[in-house]
Amino acid sequence: MSALKFKLTIAFDGSAYQGWQSQKSGRGVQDQVEAALARLFPSAPGVQGSSRTDAGVHALGMTAHFEVRRVEFRMPARHLVLAINACLPEDIRVLSAAKAPAEFNARFDTTGKQYRYEVWNHTVMNPLERARAWHVPRPLDLAAMREAAAHFVGRHDFRSFTANRGDVLEDAVRTLSRCEVRRTGARITFIIEGEGFLYKMCRGIVGTLVQIGYGKYPPAEVKEMLAREDRRVAGMNAPAHGLVLWKVFYPRTQVRSRP
Amino acid sequence: MSALKFKLTIAFDGSAYQGWQSQKSGRGVQDQVEAALARLFPSAPGVQGSSRTDAGVHALGMTAHFEVRRVEFRMPARHLVLAINACLPEDIRVLSAAKAPAEFNARFDTTGKQYRYEVWNHTVMNPLERARAWHVPRPLDLAAMREAAAHFVGRHDFRSFTANRGDVLEDAVRTLSRCEVRRTGARITFIIEGEGFLYKMCRGIVGTLVQIGYGKYPPAEVKEMLAREDRRVAGMNAPAHGLVLWKVFYPRTQVRSRP
Repeated sequence: MSALKFKLTIAFDGSAYQGWQSQKSGRGVQDQVEAALARLFPSAPGVQGSSRTDAGVHALGMTAHFEVRRVEFRMPARHLVLAINACLPEDIRVLSAAKAPAEFNARFDTTGKQYRYEVWNHTVMNPLERARAWHVPRPLDLAAMREAAAHFVGRHDFRSFTANRGDVLEDAVRTLSRCEVRRTGARITFIIEGEGFLYKMCRGIVGTLVQIGYGKYPPAEVKEMLAREDRRVAGMNAPAHGLVLWKVFYPRTQVRSRP
Repeated sequence: MSALKFKLTIAFDGSAYQGWQSQKSGRGVQDQVEAALARLFPSAPGVQGSSRTDAGVHALGMTAHFEVRRVEFRMPARHLVLAINACLPEDIRVLSAAKAPAEFNARFDTTGKQYRYEVWNHTVMNPLERARAWHVPRPLDLAAMREAAAHFVGRHDFRSFTANRGDVLEDAVRTLSRCEVRRTGARITFIIEGEGFLYKMCRGIVGTLVQIGYGKYPPAEVKEMLAREDRRVAGMNAPAHGLVLWKVFYPRTQVRSRP
């Protein structure tokens, strides 16, 4: 056992970044976390994140793992969070760091993820919410949106709800366990949970639900959209800045909660 | 009746501004609203706001009035909000505009104001809240803070809770009708309502309550602080970026709610 492995839980305001993944420009969140670790550990460990998030998407529960040589880890483990945060910009924060077993992999061991999406549904945008909620000024039919949301739950081919990245998509079958729409005043929150997600799938689901909310499609059309397996029959993509990777799930026993 | 008077309700993210009031630098929120009106009306009307807010303080319910010549008001009144917002930066939004009687004055007719202050009480700051909540990492005793908050309610001399602006303060007696502390997860919200407020008074109250929350003063010390009428005996000022001017109250019958 010459290496120590840690699981990190990370929050970030994605406004200034090209998504999680490392970029040549250095504007991936991963680049910032790796730069912080390089200041703490001579081996400059790489970080493996659980999810690639799109440019502009936020996170409150991103997870990642990294390994350091046991000999270079000289601080009390409980200081690790403070030490990394001291080296990070303010828009990225490590919320927790837990020792993980050697076999833990933040990306491959996930059992599910929860995303939340926020819409500000009022004729005028709230300026304090403008960096993290999508402004939808038109009145929305919540009952229709909830009826439509229920059609997404379960095991479906989600080909119609993913952006084409030019490559042929072989397996687009995913299982959603939750797709809820909540309203508090002008704030509408979408909670979407599932085993795994395709590229831009959450944003396609939310965009379609909003269009159903102002009457562009009837709620039952979602069944048809899923069945057609064609991106062109579904609704729009909601913009990135309303989306938050809220939580990443792992088997319960795998990682101790505190370092 | 050659003039039309309007009451505006305005929301702004105060991060980029030197407060509401017009500045030589042009970085007052009022400067931005007046610049927008100048693009719509040849007379370039001045705006009278209900409150001066400090640099960095936000608002969701600032109020103001302005007058235009009847002959220069050529749009349907219901378009006024859209027209002004089209001329404002994204961090300032007019939420509503209502025709007001000639005798209405947004500053002198107020019957009260409500401020809210947000604290993020967790060891690590939430990066999505960093522009509008004060990060307090230490554990807080909510019961002590609530006991202390109750001592602020009522009619008191608040001299100990206002920043000295160099001038002698003649009348520092104010009446608070609410001073509440609410908690939801890591978010602590202070709701402070009263007829009128002294300079930095809300921030002095919140800073003192937070210090009571981590045990620097016992809750009953608030009575002593008020009685001493000396700024040096009260607690710290909470930073500006957690404070929001939430609502300004007027006599109910004075202004029609829609233009």
